[in-house]
Amino acid sequence: MISTERLTKNFASMAAIGAQDGGVTRLAFSDADWQARDFILELMKEAGLSVRLDAFGNLIGRREGYLPDAPSVLMGSHIDSVPNGGNYDGVAGVLAAIEVARCLQADGIKHAHGIELVVFMAEESSRFGMATLGSKAFCGKLSGAQLEQYQDKQGVSLAAAMRQRGLAPEKIDQARYHGAIKAFLELHIEQGKVLETTGKQIGIVTGIAAPTRLRVTVTGQADHSGATPMHMRQDALTAAAEIILLIEKLAGEEGPNGTVGTTGVIKAEPGVMNVIPGRVELGVDIRGISANSKKRVVEQFKAGLDEIQRRREIATEFVTLTDEKPVEISREIVEFLDKIAIDSGYDTLRLPSGAGHDAMHLADIAPTGMLFVPCKGGISHNPAESADIEDIAAAAQVLLMAVIRLTQPDFVIK
Amino acid sequence: MISTERLTKNFASMAAIGAQDGGVTRLAFSDADWQARDFILELMKEAGLSVRLDAFGNLIGRREGYLPDAPSVLMGSHIDSVPNGGNYDGVAGVLAAIEVARCLQADGIKHAHGIELVVFMAEESSRFGMATLGSKAFCGKLSGAQLEQYQDKQGVSLAAAMRQRGLAPEKIDQARYHGAIKAFLELHIEQGKVLETTGKQIGIVTGIAAPTRLRVTVTGQADHSGATPMHMRQDALTAAAEIILLIEKLAGEEGPNGTVGTTGVIKAEPGVMNVIPGRVELGVDIRGISANSKKRVVEQFKAGLDEIQRRREIATEFVTLTDEKPVEISREIVEFLDKIAIDSGYDTLRLPSGAGHDAMHLADIAPTGMLFVPCKGGISHNPAESADIEDIAAAAQVLLMAVIRLTQPDFVIK
Repeated sequence: MISTERLTKNFASMAAIGAQDGGVTRLAFSDADWQARDFILELMKEAGLSVRLDAFGNLIGRREGYLPDAPSVLMGSHIDSVPNGGNYDGVAGVLAAIEVARCLQADGIKHAHGIELVVFMAEESSRFGMATLGSKAFCGKLSGAQLEQYQDKQGVSLAAAMRQRGLAPEKIDQARYHGAIKAFLELHIEQGKVLETTGKQIGIVTGIAAPTRLRVTVTGQADHSGATPMHMRQDALTAAAEIILLIEKLAGEEGPNGTVGTTGVIKAEPGVMNVIPGRVELGVDIRGISANSKKRVVEQFKAGLDEIQRRREIATEFVTLTDEKPVEISREIVEFLDKIAIDSGYDTLRLPSGAGHDAMHLADIAPTGMLFVPCKGGISHNPAESADIEDIAAAAQVLLMAVIRLTQPDFVIK
Repeated sequence: MISTERLTKNFASMAAIGAQDGGVTRLAFSDADWQARDFILELMKEAGLSVRLDAFGNLIGRREGYLPDAPSVLMGSHIDSVPNGGNYDGVAGVLAAIEVARCLQADGIKHAHGIELVVFMAEESSRFGMATLGSKAFCGKLSGAQLEQYQDKQGVSLAAAMRQRGLAPEKIDQARYHGAIKAFLELHIEQGKVLETTGKQIGIVTGIAAPTRLRVTVTGQADHSGATPMHMRQDALTAAAEIILLIEKLAGEEGPNGTVGTTGVIKAEPGVMNVIPGRVELGVDIRGISANSKKRVVEQFKAGLDEIQRRREIATEFVTLTDEKPVEISREIVEFLDKIAIDSGYDTLRLPSGAGHDAMHLADIAPTGMLFVPCKGGISHNPAESADIEDIAAAAQVLLMAVIRLTQPDFVIK
């Protein structure tokens, strides 16, 4: 059985590594990150795993199955953090997986397939500007050229940071995982407040949303706000207000399909009391786990922009900054995990992941599933980030049972 | 008759004083301001005016009437500018008044009442942070304490700037005009584009709008934009968008009463793509020439804020930064000026002034009227500020005829 006592102790140990202003700072490849990695490495050994590292530094602990050539079952997450972040984002998935390994060891459970626990390096984009670097390398999507190109604020390249840790960036191609994978499972805090709000203990992730990001520029006429009658105005900000509400309306209509839309950035010029804004820039983020649903929002948005532009006699311009493909998690994996959780007596909710995770790259190369743990107030990337140990233990229990099932001979997810 | 040739020449001379980057910079009490003042003083003398200055440095040129004790008819404006401003704001009113004086002199016109041309100092707020200082002093509304308190960016107080020009700030009370005033007339560029848009040559000002300025703060919840479903949001920016459109709607309904409403300032926090804005600050400017109409807008705005707040479950806060009283110009003066203009064959439009002017203080102590000249694109406080000499001459002609009428014995405006 999963031990909440051991989990509590391990979370406390991790919280002390890189502790800063009530939170933790463990930037990728930093000393704190490396100390945390050493600590996890020891836990992996204690759990009876044989540990190796790949060419990017990802830590892999293996428990052999009795059919050595059978595809492995993988679980994992990350331990690096944003500056002054929380101690649950990533860490929950790693410590839960270690707890799973300890249970397998303690109970002497036999399994046909090998089991691997992967600690992915550099999941957070805080240091090198790019996220999920370890899982990218693991899936063969990170090149030597990129290692030289990505730099931190001090101008240290990712390749140089690797060299400082005794890694050889020129061998990055060898980081690509070559074995056969039966499934990959990641446990993670939700980083949203849907589970908390609905009172569910375990989230079964139905897909990982990908952002489509737009920069919308509205150009009107910057006239004197006192001397220009209302009917003679080409106010870029009132037009932008309609655009903001349009995004909200369109995303609301696609809510049942898991799509959300947000205007997070607004800049109005000249930005003084006595001038009608002549130019407004908006940053719009549309996310969803259904590419079709996102597409519908974007297309209706374009049509709506056109209408606003014509009616208000202002000009709008529209640049797509990113348009990423969401990761769909197979219905079979969702059913499989949900059934285990329900049979164990947990209240579950199927929900999309709004944030990105290492799992999204693993989904390219293997059947992949994710379990979400409620987190307090949906707060993440912040010292106030918090999750209940009981909830983490519950999800770890589901992870354990899923791993046991998946590693039985001839078990097929369906 | 008004001479467009002389006007053109005088505008060119003025444009050279403080010339900078295509515009003019004549900050109050600066060397350029003083040079321009000397130039105007010479023009006043050439026009046969006897010139004096008051305790604040306001320049007053008098042409005696044949009934020395009759109340005087005043006209005037200002010659200081904003940094890199235009050469028409203020200057048009001063040069037109000088042209009026020259015509009176040239034609040897007899008048019962004395005529005075006033050049008000420090109309622009650019240097000392407060506008219309000269006309305030002229109307007894500027104290010695204020002269010490107002400072420019270099920390030079208004009192010190006066001393540098040989003026005695301790005698500021003497700046208050003690004579009886029959009427005050100011000619000014519109600083809006209503005349240009409607194709009218002369504007008859119906009132001087005063701003009511509000700072509205909207507080929602700064959740993750990917992980928060649309129905669980407390988005401060979508609420703010409704508030912006509410101001536009309410001001639009009061359009016939000359009230306008503008959101010129918006700041959304944290202002990043992946977080729902949790806090938005708006700067709202409501202006009008009718205090009742402004009050209606503000009251309905409060009610609308309440409704938005309740429906969206966000909090709104509301601070009144300024709430100034508009200056109403009497119907009699409007009719008087409009009739002269129409009888002279000009196309006129009655319209409110959105910006403040020296005339608003004079309105406290005397019957006051204003004539507007169209300006190109409504642009002001900018090197691109421009007005047609023919239009200035037309308004100067109306000013001349108004002054002649007003200075006839026993003439009553009605």
